[in-house]
Formats: sequence, structure tokens, C-alpha cells
Amino acid sequence: MMKDKPVQVFLDELASKASTPGGGSAAAIMGAMGAALASMVGNFTIGKKGYEAVEREMTDLLAKIEALRAKLTDMVRADVEVFDQVMGAYGMPKDTDEQKAKRSEAVQAALKAATDVPLACARACAEVIDLCKPVAEKGNKNVISDAGVAVLAAYAALRSAALNVYINAPGIKDRQFVESRTAELEGILKGKEARMEEIYGIVKSRL
Amino acid sequence: MMKDKPVQVFLDELASKASTPGGGSAAAIMGAMGAALASMVGNFTIGKKGYEAVEREMTDLLAKIEALRAKLTDMVRADVEVFDQVMGAYGMPKDTDEQKAKRSEAVQAALKAATDVPLACARACAEVIDLCKPVAEKGNKNVISDAGVAVLAAYAALRSAALNVYINAPGIKDRQFVESRTAELEGILKGKEARMEEIYGIVKSRL
Repeated sequence: MMKDKPVQVFLDELASKASTPGGGSAAAIMGAMGAALASMVGNFTIGKKGYEAVEREMTDLLAKIEALRAKLTDMVRADVEVFDQVMGAYGMPKDTDEQKAKRSEAVQAALKAATDVPLACARACAEVIDLCKPVAEKGNKNVISDAGVAVLAAYAALRSAALNVYINAPGIKDRQFVESRTAELEGILKGKEARMEEIYGIVKSRL
Repeated sequence: MMKDKPVQVFLDELASKASTPGGGSAAAIMGAMGAALASMVGNFTIGKKGYEAVEREMTDLLAKIEALRAKLTDMVRADVEVFDQVMGAYGMPKDTDEQKAKRSEAVQAALKAATDVPLACARACAEVIDLCKPVAEKGNKNVISDAGVAVLAAYAALRSAALNVYINAPGIKDRQFVESRTAELEGILKGKEARMEEIYGIVKSRL
């Protein structure tokens, strides 16, 4: 699996002519990196002198962030799987009308799956961004820049996941599906840049 | 070395109570991911039907981007090294006046090194952002969303590297050093958000 490969190999494969991993996997990894850095700040806060008052809250936050990190890391696998599903569907025979119908059905199902995976990624990244706020406000000052990197990574991951939703939309015939997913995505994106900048500002004020 | 560790291990260590890898390494990896995705678009453009006219330019771009990717990947090692240098300096004995003076000198040298590494990272990320523009404009439309993810990653990496410059500045006594590095950083950051949004817009228009 991708997550078991060395970082250097992951980067080499990302750069290569192979279709996977691509931007969808990169978005999931960036989101997981954001979650990991928020966790790092939490881990440097819990049990530290001067942070006793926030220890309980930080422990709760850490559990939530780590759950999101696991989810985002797993999305790398899901991204590769749905890409393969799309490629497999496009590769189906299309000689007879029956084959054409079957292929079209498979392509449509695959494109929907390839929309729902980055949408779930966007949802998880948005949650990471929200959780970065209390981490940035109350986390250990000695590692507070890491809370800033966390929110920058999660925000870039969110917008990257959004691009991966948009790219599949034109090929999907079920316009109700496209509209509902696009509307959900717009809702997730709304106000997130301001939120990210707010958290970045909190971090900078605590440096 | 960090880059030889599996992605999952890198993420786990990022999240852990260990000081390295931290935000500086994450910034370098994000920058390298941005470069890798720009390379991917280049690799999917060179030799493809309909892109003959841009093949030569894309080959030149690819060489430049790959050089930056190698540089950024190597910065993960450099980031860990300067962090260890800072920790080592702070850990030096400070019982006598002579020891105190030696320690202070070592701390100052280490903090300067720990400023110059993320500054070099910021410089490389800014170059990746600039190179993403022709890639987004002329790259293969089939993988154009990856050019968008590339610029988002490089921009998040740039601002993350900047945070790692800022965090060391207050501890550095040589104010001329701090002013020159901060001025250079501000110059690198200037206009980069608009550039990123411009490139993102180009990508979205070609989806």
C-alpha cells in the first residue's frame, strides 16, 4: 500500500508518468500531515507544566484529530481504488449496444465514487481546520508554529480535494447527484479561508 | 533518513512527542509534493498528441522542477540537522562564565542556521509556484487538476517555511541578520497569494 512506501518513493511515483498516486492521494496525505502536526502540538501540551488547565480539553482534541488522521491516511488507498475503478470502466468493451450500455453504467458509477472520495476528504480536512483553532489558542507555545503549519496543510488539502471533486463532475450524467455534491462542497469551503487566516493569525501572535 | 521511512511512519513521527520531524520537515515535504505534481503534469504532456508545440518548453520546465524537488526533499534532512544543532547548543553546560559564553555563541550560530534552512525552503517553494504557471497553462488537460494541487501544496509549504523563519527570529541577538532575513522573506512572500490564486484560476478554467 502507498502509505507503506518510503516518502522518497511516494514522491517519485507522484512525479512519474504513472496515474496513481496523483492529486487525490496528495490531498489526503497533506490533510493527514495537517492532522499529524496538530496532534504533535497536543502531545507537547498534555502533561506539560503551565498547561494543566487545558490538559483535559487537549486530550479530547487529540483523540478527535487522531481519528481524522487515520481517516485521511486511509483515503490514499481509497483514492487509488476509485481511480482504478474509473480506468477499468473506461477500458470495458464497447462493440455491441449491450456492451456500450454496461460500460456507460460502470463509468457513471465509477465517476460517482471518484467524486465521493475527495468529498469525504474535503469534509475531514474541514474538521481538521476547525480543530486547529483550540490547538493554536491553547497549545504549547514552544511548538506553536507547528499549529500554523497544520492549518496551512489542512487548508491546501481541502482545496486540493475540492479540485478532485470538480474534475469528475462534467462527466457525470446524473445532474441531481452533481448538484447535491457541489452544493455540499461549497458549504464545506465557505468561510474556510477566513478561518485558516484567523488561526494563522493566532499562531503568529503567539510566536 | 526521514525520506527513506514509510509514509505512515513519517506521519506517526510527525504526530508524536518527538521534536523531529516537525513543521519544518512538513514544509519541505509539502514543497516537494508540489514539485512532484507539477512534474507529473509535465510527464503527462511530453510526448502526448496535441501537445507537440509545448514539448520543448515542458521538457525545460520539468528539469527545473525536478531540481527543485531534489532540493526540497533534501531540506527535510537539513531541517532535522539544524533542529538537533539548536537542541545541542541549548544543552551545553553553563556553570562558568566561559561555558556560558561558549554556549551562547553556539546557540546563536544554531538559531541562524535554523533560520537559513526554512528561508532556503521558502525560496525554493516560490520558484515551484512560478513554474506552476506555464504548467497549468500548457499542461495536459487530462491531469490539469494536479497542477492545481501542485500550486496549493507549494503555497502552503511557502507559508509554512515562513513560520519557521519567524519562530527563530526573537532568539537571535544579531538584529542585522534578523532584519536582512526577514526582509528577504517578505520579498519572497510578496504577491505569492495572488500568483497562487491566478494559477488556481487557470486550472479551474481548464477542468
